[in-house]
Amino acid sequence: MQQDQHRFTIHTQGQALYEFTDDVTDWLAGTGIHTGLLTLFCRHTSASLLINENAASAVQRDLLRWLDKAVPQGPQYEHDSEGPDDMPAHIRTMLTGASLSIPVSGGRMALGTWQGVYLAEHRRAAHAREIIAHIIGV
Amino acid sequence: MQQDQHRFTIHTQGQALYEFTDDVTDWLAGTGIHTGLLTLFCRHTSASLLINENAASAVQRDLLRWLDKAVPQGPQYEHDSEGPDDMPAHIRTMLTGASLSIPVSGGRMALGTWQGVYLAEHRRAAHAREIIAHIIGV
Amino acid sequence: MQQDQHRFTIHTQGQALYEFTDDVTDWLAGTGIHTGLLTLFCRHTSASLLINENAASAVQRDLLRWLDKAVPQGPQYEHDSEGPDDMPAHIRTMLTGASLSIPVSGGRMALGTWQGVYLAEHRRAAHAREIIAHIIGV
Repeated sequence: MQQDQHRFTIHTQGQALYEFTDDVTDWLAGTGIHTGLLTLFCRHTSASLLINENAASAVQRDLLRWLDKAVPQGPQYEHDSEGPDDMPAHIRTMLTGASLSIPVSGGRMALGTWQGVYLAEHRRAAHAREIIAHIIGV
Repeated sequence: MQQDQHRFTIHTQGQALYEFTDDVTDWLAGTGIHTGLLTLFCRHTSASLLINENAASAVQRDLLRWLDKAVPQGPQYEHDSEGPDDMPAHIRTMLTGASLSIPVSGGRMALGTWQGVYLAEHRRAAHAREIIAHIIGV
Repeated sequence: MQQDQHRFTIHTQGQALYEFTDDVTDWLAGTGIHTGLLTLFCRHTSASLLINENAASAVQRDLLRWLDKAVPQGPQYEHDSEGPDDMPAHIRTMLTGASLSIPVSGGRMALGTWQGVYLAEHRRAAHAREIIAHIIGV
């Protein structure tokens, strides 16, 4: 049994979903681990990780529109010192989560046909987002 | 330290929560692993996994009613080519998540008294849903 | 490769976020594991785990206010035998989740600068909440 860790940095340009499935796939192949468990962890409280459809880009826009409507900007927040998009970003992060756990088989993530791995950026400004990948297996 | 993987297939018949706690318990017992970490991963973007109360079935109905109201069908979605229940299913999957991580102790999941493991089917039509289970431990 | 498990008990006094980052940090240090994967699991269906900002306490209050508004108490629930705060607690648990997966590096959780680990108590009454921690690594 062995393990490995890696830090991915994703440079975001505003609120959007940024797919990084291929980056993870490439790194995994290099570890030489065939069967195991992959964990991805986002080190931020205004960006998050999620898995969703990677075929139709309209799906990604609809996901973001729902978050915009369900967690709107506005004067209702006590915490507003970092701008109107800050507190909605924390709430959207709470709803979507900081970590993903994905089994690995045949040296690849055991994703379904339409699943892609995304960083969800919830802030308007450009950011460098850090994601820690951990793999354990054989 | 050893590990094992298994694929569960759940045949769904419309929007509902499908408990499969006992299936996981039985498979775990067969692996012979006493202490470790179990991961369950749903290979779909319109069905998800969650843990909730397995005593009162009304709880499960209320969970689904809340999702129906918070993420309604309607003309507001750009992505509608697969039917009116498709985009709400993707959003509900985003909110509830694709993976569960559950410690194992004494050869069993360390669930609380009232916790059950559910597949949440978010589409109306019948589907065969695949869940990958991964266990690592001793 | 080695593993360890521990049970944390958090005594809650009503709906709030209870940070226990330091408790986990201290326990981790005692395990002697330097690099690995930490899993935290909440054994309840009306309390959950989340990671969010631990600098401004207003953030935590705004997170709770959003949950109060998005998942309100009211007569709309079929399941109401345990009080008006029970079904909203199950829904809020569904949205925020029972488990967290956090890579460990240098003997510490690989948290970002502003990330804290919280138990979210969704019931009004006092409760003793159990969280299982599992660490695997070297």
